Amino acid sequence: MPNPSLLILPGDGIGPEVMAEVRKIIDWFEAKRGIAFDVSEDLVGGCAYDKHGTPLHDDTMARAQEVDAVLLGAVGGPKYDNLDFSVKPERGLLRLRKEMDLFSNLRPAQCFDALADFSSLKKDVVAGLDIMIVRELTSGVYFGEPRGIFEEGNERVGINTQRYTESEIDRVARSAFDLAMKRGKKLCSMEKANVMESGILWREVVTEVGKDYPEVELSHMYADAGAMQLTRWPKQFDVIVTDNLFGDLLSDLAAMLTGSLGMLPSASLGAPMNNGRPKALYEPVHGSAPDIAGQGKANPCACILSFAMALRYSFDMGDEADRLEKAVNDVLASGVRTADLLNEDGITPASTTEMGDAVIKAL
Amino acid sequence: MPNPSLLILPGDGIGPEVMAEVRKIIDWFEAKRGIAFDVSEDLVGGCAYDKHGTPLHDDTMARAQEVDAVLLGAVGGPKYDNLDFSVKPERGLLRLRKEMDLFSNLRPAQCFDALADFSSLKKDVVAGLDIMIVRELTSGVYFGEPRGIFEEGNERVGINTQRYTESEIDRVARSAFDLAMKRGKKLCSMEKANVMESGILWREVVTEVGKDYPEVELSHMYADAGAMQLTRWPKQFDVIVTDNLFGDLLSDLAAMLTGSLGMLPSASLGAPMNNGRPKALYEPVHGSAPDIAGQGKANPCACILSFAMALRYSFDMGDEADRLEKAVNDVLASGVRTADLLNEDGITPASTTEMGDAVIKAL
Ligand SMILES: CC(C)[C@H](C(=O)O)[C@@H](O)C(=O)O
Ligand SMILES: CC(C)[C@H](C(=O)O)[C@@H](O)C(=O)O
Repeated sequence: MPNPSLLILPGDGIGPEVMAEVRKIIDWFEAKRGIAFDVSEDLVGGCAYDKHGTPLHDDTMARAQEVDAVLLGAVGGPKYDNLDFSVKPERGLLRLRKEMDLFSNLRPAQCFDALADFSSLKKDVVAGLDIMIVRELTSGVYFGEPRGIFEEGNERVGINTQRYTESEIDRVARSAFDLAMKRGKKLCSMEKANVMESGILWREVVTEVGKDYPEVELSHMYADAGAMQLTRWPKQFDVIVTDNLFGDLLSDLAAMLTGSLGMLPSASLGAPMNNGRPKALYEPVHGSAPDIAGQGKANPCACILSFAMALRYSFDMGDEADRLEKAVNDVLASGVRTADLLNEDGITPASTTEMGDAVIKAL
Repeated sequence: MPNPSLLILPGDGIGPEVMAEVRKIIDWFEAKRGIAFDVSEDLVGGCAYDKHGTPLHDDTMARAQEVDAVLLGAVGGPKYDNLDFSVKPERGLLRLRKEMDLFSNLRPAQCFDALADFSSLKKDVVAGLDIMIVRELTSGVYFGEPRGIFEEGNERVGINTQRYTESEIDRVARSAFDLAMKRGKKLCSMEKANVMESGILWREVVTEVGKDYPEVELSHMYADAGAMQLTRWPKQFDVIVTDNLFGDLLSDLAAMLTGSLGMLPSASLGAPMNNGRPKALYEPVHGSAPDIAGQGKANPCACILSFAMALRYSFDMGDEADRLEKAVNDVLASGVRTADLLNEDGITPASTTEMGDAVIKAL
């Protein structure tokens, strides 16, 4: 059997810095655990635009389709703000999601014990929090047509289309139910069925799929109420399933509840390939953070934990994933912190490299 | 000059209970302050459907167009969940917003000193919080066409359309800048210009309008980052302007930060009428709360404060509005609380009527 293959796309901003730490982790797994990966690296986002005039070169896209997993850092930055919409850094990421058909985006919002104090929420509200948001990632208003800015009468009008087919809802719902079965067997679906017909169809299909999962307790919530309830008492949730746009907001909100955005990984999964592995892309929830890029301040943990998700979901190495996650936890517990995880003055924060080194030591 | 006219639509669930307290306040203003209102009352939502087979009768709609202000309680309830989309309680409210052309929805998120402990967020994060969300209310995905559930191939597809014209963005942006001028002169506009063309147009038009308000410090944020920043450190904001759907989620989130949803009013304003007053509808941010309806537990303050907003924005009675808001504050400070504002056991909560009476006493 060939080595598991991994395409690394560090991207922009702090992407390359945090990815350098993941490379060290991969080296450790090769040296110490005898697991060989077939690693390649390429450009995505603004840096790809700088070199090729497009945020994702066709060769990179083709390579992404072949590998077992893609690991992405982050894309975007103020330098690219005025680029035409079609070549913005984000389009590179969106093309990967769409063409790899990564319909199920798993975004855990987990509060690390050692960091519970760091949230803007009260400790008892977030301590022990462990929820999973499943966001549909290849459809909805992100990709619906017609879209664009058009002339109409004597003014312009901006149009986007929210669009969901039954089968699109069905497959992401199944992935969420499957996950709920492995977790607390509770699933909450969020939409705006009270104002949007696409939300009505969403609710109907999710309810229908639920009949195949009688053990899972299914509930429905309007997305605005969902935002409220996540803020009020997030521990009421186990798994949440929602569409692309609501998922964008709600998963960021859920991430922020934990107080440690620099810690949160994500996995975007598609259908199984010939080898049985799902198409997969892993990336930290945080963005490219241009304000701190290149200063060695970024927290590499979210990217390291994204690699742990790859070990678990793509490479069937659950034990190695556990090992890596435990190492990160141990480092936090020992008090080593990057700047984003510190609010008291007087403590010297660990640099990106120091944090990576500490994880390797803990391994 | 004729008396100021007010159409009262208590609606469903706790709507009638909280509105009864507002009636008492109106009586007090008539008896003690010599201000006569021309008050009429009618049905909206589920109760209108029960009587007329429509959530808003044409006569009610016509009356709403004539009066100086509409005061609405809440609409909806599980009894109506399976009604056809076109006659759902929410359609009554949406028809009012659309036909009265109430494009600017003001949703203050204010943390009452006496209630700062009650938030799920840390006290220092929310104490003294005072932000205003201006939500576009008559366009976007709530009203865009095409919409519906269609057959396509051998499956159904749910479609909604996000649609904004330049003039729609322009007018709501102006109302937000006007407000910012009366407040802290800081405005943050939120959209998803990185993935939606309607967001690009939104950002362009808001930036353009900003040139007429050189004193206001304008910033832009992606809506997902906005959800994060509201959770992390809400006091960084003064006025926020955003579209109908993002505004729905973000204003509910902001409301929940304060920990006291039962306290929050809203105003929906349109263009000036012949008498110079804007078309206006006032309603509490909370919903119909069917779980506690009819039990005398509901907090009437949000509805009372919505009436205070009517005094201020429709009737040019800023002093009377101040008086009423101060009375509510004094009651809270004195420790009188409805059940939603209590988390310790052993304290007997005030009923809806007791709360209303306490406000009148404080007046
Ligand atoms: C970068 C951007 C296109 C992206 C999105 O909107 O999906 C990001 O916010 C995310 O959540 O992954
Ligand atoms: C009741 C519902 C139609 C409404 C909305 O979605 O606008 C409500 O959530 C609100 O925010 O006023």
